[in-house]
Amino acid sequence: MSKPTSLQRLGHALRTRRSALGFSQESFADKIEMHRTYYSAIERGEKNITVSMLERVADGLGVRPSALMAEASL
Amino acid sequence: MSKPTSLQRLGHALRTRRSALGFSQESFADKIEMHRTYYSAIERGEKNITVSMLERVADGLGVRPSALMAEASL
Repeated sequence: MSKPTSLQRLGHALRTRRSALGFSQESFADKIEMHRTYYSAIERGEKNITVSMLERVADGLGVRPSALMAEASL
Repeated sequence: MSKPTSLQRLGHALRTRRSALGFSQESFADKIEMHRTYYSAIERGEKNITVSMLERVADGLGVRPSALMAEASL
């Protein structure tokens, strides 16, 4: 196993928050009006998410974007 | 004056940090190997910066990306 990238750590933080709220990936993506495959790729750390997209995800999770970044040790 | 966008607030936080370190926009952009016009647009809040780019800027400023986000009230 190689060390997770920062985007993978961020994706992991999103996954943890999203799961804790009881959302499936699909239902959460629908809620924030993001394409399901795109959201799934973000959680896997495969998309270099923009600050605006991160804001939209954070808003859906009810958390501040800076808090998500901190949870990913960013 | 309209309310600053989140990208404008982030750009302002970068500008404040960069100035405090005594860098011009140009010298800082060179230091982090980013195109000068691109970096300038980021400080003006005109680019929807990615998390990876934000990491590069934060690294150049010697601060955590999450701290920059928090300084922008994100």
